[in-house]
Amino acid sequence: MNEGKKMYSFCSRIFPICRSITGDGVRETFRLLQEEIPDIPITMYEVESGTQVLDWTVPKEWNIRDAWIERPDGERICEFRKNNLHILHYSVPVDETVSLEELKQHITTLKDQPDLIPYASSYYKERWGFCMTYHELESLPEGEYRVRIDSTLEPGSLTYGEMIFPGETDEEIFFSSYTCHPSMANNECSGPSLMMALARYLKDLPRRRYTYRLVLAPETIGAITYLSRNLDYMKKHVIAGFNLTCVGDDRTYSLIHSRYGDTAADRVLENVLKYHAPDYDSYPYTARGSDERQYQAPGVDIPLVCFCRSKYHIYPEYHTSADNLDLISPEGLQGSFDVMVKVIQAMEHNRFYRVTTLGEPQLGKRGLVPTMSSKETYQETLALKDLIAYADGRNDLIGISNIIGVPVDRLIPLTRQLLDCGLFEETGETGKS
Amino acid sequence: MNEGKKMYSFCSRIFPICRSITGDGVRETFRLLQEEIPDIPITMYEVESGTQVLDWTVPKEWNIRDAWIERPDGERICEFRKNNLHILHYSVPVDETVSLEELKQHITTLKDQPDLIPYASSYYKERWGFCMTYHELESLPEGEYRVRIDSTLEPGSLTYGEMIFPGETDEEIFFSSYTCHPSMANNECSGPSLMMALARYLKDLPRRRYTYRLVLAPETIGAITYLSRNLDYMKKHVIAGFNLTCVGDDRTYSLIHSRYGDTAADRVLENVLKYHAPDYDSYPYTARGSDERQYQAPGVDIPLVCFCRSKYHIYPEYHTSADNLDLISPEGLQGSFDVMVKVIQAMEHNRFYRVTTLGEPQLGKRGLVPTMSSKETYQETLALKDLIAYADGRNDLIGISNIIGVPVDRLIPLTRQLLDCGLFEETGETGKS
Amino acid sequence: MNEGKKMYSFCSRIFPICRSITGDGVRETFRLLQEEIPDIPITMYEVESGTQVLDWTVPKEWNIRDAWIERPDGERICEFRKNNLHILHYSVPVDETVSLEELKQHITTLKDQPDLIPYASSYYKERWGFCMTYHELESLPEGEYRVRIDSTLEPGSLTYGEMIFPGETDEEIFFSSYTCHPSMANNECSGPSLMMALARYLKDLPRRRYTYRLVLAPETIGAITYLSRNLDYMKKHVIAGFNLTCVGDDRTYSLIHSRYGDTAADRVLENVLKYHAPDYDSYPYTARGSDERQYQAPGVDIPLVCFCRSKYHIYPEYHTSADNLDLISPEGLQGSFDVMVKVIQAMEHNRFYRVTTLGEPQLGKRGLVPTMSSKETYQETLALKDLIAYADGRNDLIGISNIIGVPVDRLIPLTRQLLDCGLFEETGETGKS
Repeated sequence: MNEGKKMYSFCSRIFPICRSITGDGVRETFRLLQEEIPDIPITMYEVESGTQVLDWTVPKEWNIRDAWIERPDGERICEFRKNNLHILHYSVPVDETVSLEELKQHITTLKDQPDLIPYASSYYKERWGFCMTYHELESLPEGEYRVRIDSTLEPGSLTYGEMIFPGETDEEIFFSSYTCHPSMANNECSGPSLMMALARYLKDLPRRRYTYRLVLAPETIGAITYLSRNLDYMKKHVIAGFNLTCVGDDRTYSLIHSRYGDTAADRVLENVLKYHAPDYDSYPYTARGSDERQYQAPGVDIPLVCFCRSKYHIYPEYHTSADNLDLISPEGLQGSFDVMVKVIQAMEHNRFYRVTTLGEPQLGKRGLVPTMSSKETYQETLALKDLIAYADGRNDLIGISNIIGVPVDRLIPLTRQLLDCGLFEETGETGKS
Repeated sequence: MNEGKKMYSFCSRIFPICRSITGDGVRETFRLLQEEIPDIPITMYEVESGTQVLDWTVPKEWNIRDAWIERPDGERICEFRKNNLHILHYSVPVDETVSLEELKQHITTLKDQPDLIPYASSYYKERWGFCMTYHELESLPEGEYRVRIDSTLEPGSLTYGEMIFPGETDEEIFFSSYTCHPSMANNECSGPSLMMALARYLKDLPRRRYTYRLVLAPETIGAITYLSRNLDYMKKHVIAGFNLTCVGDDRTYSLIHSRYGDTAADRVLENVLKYHAPDYDSYPYTARGSDERQYQAPGVDIPLVCFCRSKYHIYPEYHTSADNLDLISPEGLQGSFDVMVKVIQAMEHNRFYRVTTLGEPQLGKRGLVPTMSSKETYQETLALKDLIAYADGRNDLIGISNIIGVPVDRLIPLTRQLLDCGLFEETGETGKS
Repeated sequence: MNEGKKMYSFCSRIFPICRSITGDGVRETFRLLQEEIPDIPITMYEVESGTQVLDWTVPKEWNIRDAWIERPDGERICEFRKNNLHILHYSVPVDETVSLEELKQHITTLKDQPDLIPYASSYYKERWGFCMTYHELESLPEGEYRVRIDSTLEPGSLTYGEMIFPGETDEEIFFSSYTCHPSMANNECSGPSLMMALARYLKDLPRRRYTYRLVLAPETIGAITYLSRNLDYMKKHVIAGFNLTCVGDDRTYSLIHSRYGDTAADRVLENVLKYHAPDYDSYPYTARGSDERQYQAPGVDIPLVCFCRSKYHIYPEYHTSADNLDLISPEGLQGSFDVMVKVIQAMEHNRFYRVTTLGEPQLGKRGLVPTMSSKETYQETLALKDLIAYADGRNDLIGISNIIGVPVDRLIPLTRQLLDCGLFEETGETGKS
């Protein structure tokens, strides 16, 4: 739980910041992250507005200082400084007086969740707007309203950061999350927070077989920007990727599969969750919604899945003011961290093994099992025997785990024992897919 | 429903005719069909009795003018002119007086459905017989019965007809039905009636990618005769075939699969029915019973399935006097027509597409989606986005439909849009199987 | 049931013998078996103690004449002559007086089945011990106990026997069972007893397409010894193998699959049991426990499954004094024999057939079906027609049986009929896997 508490604390620090797909809120978020992991360099990138990135163009940079609506009676509502969800993100500046009728064309609410402020944005069409609760909208009297948004939408740049942890090979395991949502805790403070914890874990790993690439960028346009600069290299080197989002609550675990559900990433996360949280929710790629949309797009084909606790689109607080710091917890964040550590461990140890004897080896003479057999002792060493029984060179460790029903993290020490006493040898094949 | 009404009306016209596997009833049926579609030429064939066709021999031609039984009290029963099911079809002529005991050896009844007259025939062994309700049989008094069948069984010919609609390629889609059952509505007036409607539909199609072959012949011996003359060509050219029978009631839809359930015909009809009538009945080839027995026989291997509403052998009125014009309906016939039109449309448009961008295309700038994203707008364009997500060149349109859960007829216009704006290209592969 | 009674009678003869993995009890068991089948020579082998066999070493030979414990009050308990399960098998000789506390370290009981004596052994670590009911253990008073085991553990040999029934080809079907358990009826008297019945059946077969190899050896070390001498030949020649154990009760049938469940042995036994006993229990290889552990070990890979009635480890009497002659029955043994006969028949007749006509053959003219068709007659010849429908050269007889839902033993005579009238031909491929 140690890590979960630190993760929660970092979520609390970055929660108030008004992030969007560009702007100073993003930079401030990275600054706080770097403060938390001072000995792990985050390489920062700025990509100019107007840059062509695949089918898209990097938009103008958006910054906002203040915004509010003044009712006919002079009361200020939708104050940016009270809750940055009140603003339609990427709103152009405005300072006008409008009728209630006109105002309503600029208001977004949630009729089905009438007490919640929705989160909305308009990145690629210039307009202005506010978000409020449906109840508040209903209570607005006729009259003149002053609307004020003190924002700038001007040429600037898009910000992203990456951390690379070199391993023994240049084959890579890729983690991505994003930094473009304003004050919502599960989506998205939990994502960068898990990246922070993984960075610390990876730095301290005594040995890294694989190279690890951790990328934080704005959702969609950031992933597209990143791909426009790194696709060729990633296609050659990434063997499994994990998009991390909504990883902070403690209701369930969710796996959103790759396009055909058949990559090494699907396989390892399925294996880990099957033992760690057998009633996790499994979704096909048609339920996708985050950056797996880019990394798994036709022709991109990075072998990647998306990992959540409660899945975006599904949990009722998603993209509303109820996605606050009460929704997430140290326990929820720790659970996500634990799953990703198991994923890393399973990948690091996933090799093909072959038993060196013909017929069952005599385990007794090597002190691996009790010497007196009885009805009770038989089951005790079953995991060990099953591991040996399927060590025929056809299965990697994840495959054996799936067949014999024993988690990989229980098999890793057994495999070490068998290698040490010469009963196992590696076939040389690596377990990638 | 327009087509359904015309189909029902045609069923009513051909219902009274006494058809069998040969004879003038068959020719009269074709004459009425040609009257309905005067601008579509039906090519007629006559194949002489005694002709060897595969493992079979074309039988003598059977014609019947009248038949009845006279009871001891002089009452006439089993009158051919009242219901042609009263006669064992292919009965040789007879004019005798027999005891009740001897008569009974020539009577077929249905003990389980004691109020219905069964339909029976004896094509390949010469005999005579009558069919009546089980109740009538039980009421027959002892005494002498005069039996009279005024039929001829003589060298003649077997009659069949075909319609060909040429397309842009000589790859063919094949439809078959039959014309050998007497006065029963579902089995079989509905079959020729659906062929009539499809002929009209195909003639009016502005563009036909495939060539269409529609064949009406007597069941079994007709299909065998047809194959004996067309097998080599059909094996090379038919990419999907559909045997149509019992397509007039409105209780369910039935798909009888090909031998291994793996042809293009299985695939397209499965796809169409899954959306059009999700609780349709699916049968393996072991439940076969109509001309799929010939077209799917080992070595013949035309990729064909059988399509019914209520399946032969299964519905209680099958092969009895209860299979009358009350059993079928314009709605039932229309439903079958609609399914076959969807099948034709799906086949015509079933290509492999590939999206031309890397990463998701920006749909907003092309006006394909709303520009302001919010919790509500996301689902709206899901079908479009899912279509794009699986346009990776590995899936034809039916494959995408199966994966993303959207019917092909909803995907066809979307595909057109995407081709028009340059986001899709065809891979050149055709979607056959 | 004739065979079942003989099998039961043989079980009764060998039940009292104190067998172990070596020793005179094994030799006496073989002597009695040879008495039962005097005209079938059992080839006997003796392998010296100390011989290296794969990863193992043939142990010293163990023989025992008597054993007991004398309580403080002079009463003798755990008398070997009353029940040979009272002795920890492979106990070294002992003649000592020990305290209750020390004695308890040498006692094995079953707390969960407090009225039963467990079966226990210590083959590879020299020690001595006794087995008793848990209730008896609890009733032992404090005091001095005399323990006496009159055994020898000395260089000698391991005994096994084999029977070979040559066939038309040198492809082999392999049966194994074992002869190393003391007085327990299901595990193991039933196994050698089924081998006896199969030997008689195979000897009397008018024609054997395959060669049959029947091996009886001590479990584990015997199978390993056998493999160390025969592996290369068996890998080349055995097409299916069956380890037979616990085949005497009449509660269920059990199939323990091969490592991947994909051998010819899995396939034929699955097919036979699916019709003979549809609710049989199917286990994956992870539930293994008998000599399939050796024959299916990585690199050995004999295509073998294990067949039981109630499975070892599962039935409550397993490895206890309750596995006695009341547990097994002539009916239970007969059932196992019947299943193995069906297995042999299915293997012997499992070929690929192809129908010689295009389209359905006309069965009527060959007298294979009734000549007058009606609603009732259709189902009658369905098995024949289904057999023909799938005789396309792609399926062996077991494959057709699986597809059409008709047991192989019903298909064998139909196939004969079709071959005789020229409608079937063999493709030349044999049905091995």
